[in-house]
Amino acid sequence: MEFSSKLLENAVNEVSQLPGIGKRTALRLVLHLLKQPESQTLHLVNSLQELRTEIKHCNNCHNISDVEICDICANPNRQQDIVCVVEDIRDVMAIESTAQYKGLYHVLGGKISPLDGIGPHNLTIASLVEKVKEGKIKEIIFALSSTMEGDTTNFYIYKQIENYEVKTSTIARGISVGDELEYADEVTLGRSIVNRVPFENSLKSS
Amino acid sequence: MEFSSKLLENAVNEVSQLPGIGKRTALRLVLHLLKQPESQTLHLVNSLQELRTEIKHCNNCHNISDVEICDICANPNRQQDIVCVVEDIRDVMAIESTAQYKGLYHVLGGKISPLDGIGPHNLTIASLVEKVKEGKIKEIIFALSSTMEGDTTNFYIYKQIENYEVKTSTIARGISVGDELEYADEVTLGRSIVNRVPFENSLKSS
Ligand SMILES: [Zn+2]
Ligand SMILES: [Zn+2]
Repeated sequence: MEFSSKLLENAVNEVSQLPGIGKRTALRLVLHLLKQPESQTLHLVNSLQELRTEIKHCNNCHNISDVEICDICANPNRQQDIVCVVEDIRDVMAIESTAQYKGLYHVLGGKISPLDGIGPHNLTIASLVEKVKEGKIKEIIFALSSTMEGDTTNFYIYKQIENYEVKTSTIARGISVGDELEYADEVTLGRSIVNRVPFENSLKSS
Repeated sequence: MEFSSKLLENAVNEVSQLPGIGKRTALRLVLHLLKQPESQTLHLVNSLQELRTEIKHCNNCHNISDVEICDICANPNRQQDIVCVVEDIRDVMAIESTAQYKGLYHVLGGKISPLDGIGPHNLTIASLVEKVKEGKIKEIIFALSSTMEGDTTNFYIYKQIENYEVKTSTIARGISVGDELEYADEVTLGRSIVNRVPFENSLKSS
């Protein structure tokens, strides 16, 4: 792309660094901003700058938070000794939106992925293991995505805590509620049979 | 979406103001920035702020430019009395990339679109008509998209200049080079027959 303006070229280049945004999309977004009042760009810019420079994480669960202990960890009505291990804040938001879970979270900040240069020490695994060693946790629920990286991460954590008295579980994998069996992938369908639940349990959850 | 951080919520809201970017995508983009070095966000933010506050337009053709007269208008090798009328800078970039056009441009900044609240006075039509009145232009090539808004805009401009001595043309519509006839839409195919060109002309352009 040949640009008639260095300012425009810089802006397009920076925006196209974002994942999934190519040069054409970046140009479209930047030209949109130019057509809007200057205040829109300034609000956008300020919100990103503030977030990036002032971002905090909960001291306990490592979720993004504006205070030292997040609202979930600080909530006395939540069960403090059940901890759901997730990859990032989006998983917390997804599980919270079900209103089915009343324990706490532990946000790892990613999954172990040697190809991406992410090892255990780039994640918050040590602080999770520490909590287990201190006897603060009764049950850990692994809720990472079921990919090789997710399984590796689960197993790595499991090996660190297996000698402590803590129950471990993973979220159930199965056919989505409302989905037709014939369209489910084989692995999911297989797991849903192996991990079948007593019929009375299925009555409770509906 | 329930956010655990006001800073995060603000940033996601601002990013999701951009066209085609929903809340989920905005959250993904913002979380990506949080994982990258702080410098990436600052570069992004600075480039957008600089562009939006220091943006200039060429005094002659209204294209985005960092100087008062853009490189195209200032180029003595380009034919100053042929002007191609386009909607925005992306059209200039597209036509320039063909290396087939040696005249100047006139960037309207949009199309007449009453539904979007865009009238003739929101565009740079007056300055185009002025150039025609001053006798500076021999030929105007309309290169707006062939939509109702594009046709309306072409016609509005045409009516303003029809009594002056200026040739007007529109870019040819037809079957894309390399496309099979059977897959072309009827309107395009129809136009390509009505506006057929002498065979010798087709030899020149290939
Ligand atoms: Zn917390
Ligand atoms: Zn110019």
